[in-house]
Amino acid sequence: MTVTCDLTITLDGYAAGHRQTEQRPFGDDGGDGWGDRLHAWYGEGREEHPDEFDRMLTAKAFIMGRNMFGPVRGPWDRPWTGWWGDEPPYHGPVFVLTHHPREPQPMAGGTTFHFVTDGIEAAMDRAREAAGDGGISVHGGATTVNQYLAAGLIDELRLHVAPFTLGAGVRLFDGVPPLNLEQLDARSTPSVTHLRYRVLR
Amino acid sequence: MTVTCDLTITLDGYAAGHRQTEQRPFGDDGGDGWGDRLHAWYGEGREEHPDEFDRMLTAKAFIMGRNMFGPVRGPWDRPWTGWWGDEPPYHGPVFVLTHHPREPQPMAGGTTFHFVTDGIEAAMDRAREAAGDGGISVHGGATTVNQYLAAGLIDELRLHVAPFTLGAGVRLFDGVPPLNLEQLDARSTPSVTHLRYRVLR
Ligand SMILES: NC(=O)c1ccc[n+]([C@@H]2O[C@H](COP(=O)([O-])OP(=O)(O)OC[C@H]3O[C@@H](n4cnc5c(N)ncnc54)[C@H](OP(=O)(O)O)[C@@H]3O)[C@@H](O)[C@H]2O)c1
Ligand SMILES: NC(=O)c1ccc[n+]([C@@H]2O[C@H](COP(=O)([O-])OP(=O)(O)OC[C@H]3O[C@@H](n4cnc5c(N)ncnc54)[C@H](OP(=O)(O)O)[C@@H]3O)[C@@H](O)[C@H]2O)c1
Repeated sequence: MTVTCDLTITLDGYAAGHRQTEQRPFGDDGGDGWGDRLHAWYGEGREEHPDEFDRMLTAKAFIMGRNMFGPVRGPWDRPWTGWWGDEPPYHGPVFVLTHHPREPQPMAGGTTFHFVTDGIEAAMDRAREAAGDGGISVHGGATTVNQYLAAGLIDELRLHVAPFTLGAGVRLFDGVPPLNLEQLDARSTPSVTHLRYRVLR
Repeated sequence: MTVTCDLTITLDGYAAGHRQTEQRPFGDDGGDGWGDRLHAWYGEGREEHPDEFDRMLTAKAFIMGRNMFGPVRGPWDRPWTGWWGDEPPYHGPVFVLTHHPREPQPMAGGTTFHFVTDGIEAAMDRAREAAGDGGISVHGGATTVNQYLAAGLIDELRLHVAPFTLGAGVRLFDGVPPLNLEQLDARSTPSVTHLRYRVLR
């Protein structure tokens, strides 16, 4: 089974700004609504980006960081079940990395959020077990992706590069030791360039 | 006339490592010969990358930083006429940014290196005058490119992205305020992805 990672970044490599809040989940570095600009391609949907949507949907288990899951920091002091409404698009187990334990959160449509407090390898082991022969998707943010890249646990990196720079924020590859990659393909549309790489060992 | 910039970078945005020397012009961050790996596409030549070579050759005046010109730092304490032998590939005026004055250096084939000590705008003015209706190419390294990007003086950015990361060095966009770009095209080959952007004002 393949471990893939999809991440949308600015041309200068940022996946999010600093100072994320519930009102500004992507932080305040790019001004109001810059997250929408970053993810414009996503809003254009499957029609415009068929390969990319197909590939993202094939994973059987997902891993994400707690900041991607939501804006709650520190102890879980209020109900929060993700940004995606009652029926999240995952339809399978999602392992959320956090230092703050919490009971699993089942949702409609087969998604369950599991909160993993014993680190990235433990989360990967649980995802492998859940995925069986299926794929695993490391889903972001960059803080999480960088840890998995540094640990050599990602097989395929799919970057979606938006045509602007941010200048500050949480940067993909920050602190990750040098990687060798094999280029698989590149395709540009007005809103994004899709780049696909195999990570070599 | 259009001001273009061609720069080859790693997937994490580095154009050079730290601690550049005559033996290791790209610095020592990527180990021996990593600069060759970065510029592998360039070695493959016009046959494999016709559009990119054609575009680079059309400029009528060039601007580069002193570190791209050579390994001499501080006062010009020894003869140095560039990395490119007696007949450099520029065939026109090349304006080299430096804090250390030096007489112009004419070379075979129409290249003359001019040393500009009064800053990026002065170098651009001289390049404009020399180029007439022709194009101007800001040729690197990243320290120079970043200054021109920050000053809003580049019209078209052509990045050649090599399929590996470096993790440290001189990074494109470092310290450059946010830019809006219009994506022109993307093309991948096994050794490099060519990305082309118009810089919007
Ligand atoms: N551009 C994209 O494609 C994309 C994709 C996803 C998300 N995003 C955006 O990126 C931002 C979130 O990314 P991010 O990089 O800030 O954070 P993130 O990776 O989503 O989450 C980081 C948090 O997860 C927990 N965590 C991470 N690794 C851990 C470990 N090994 N052990 C225990 N807990 C761990 C920690 O939370 P605690 O210590 O608080 O528990 C940490 O602060 C959001 O703005 C989101 O909207 C963008
Ligand atoms: N990846 C690529 O496509 C590519 C392209 C070109 C070069 N490179 C590599 O990149 C490295 C050089 O890049 P770099 O970013 O280190 O340096 P650079 O931009 O080539 O040169 C920087 C130097 O130019 C002078 N300079 C720059 N701006 C100036 C200004 N406004 N006023 C006066 N002087 C100014 C300064 O030299 P002084 O103060 O010493 O005079 C400064 O240290 C080399 O390793 C080269 O091989 C890579």
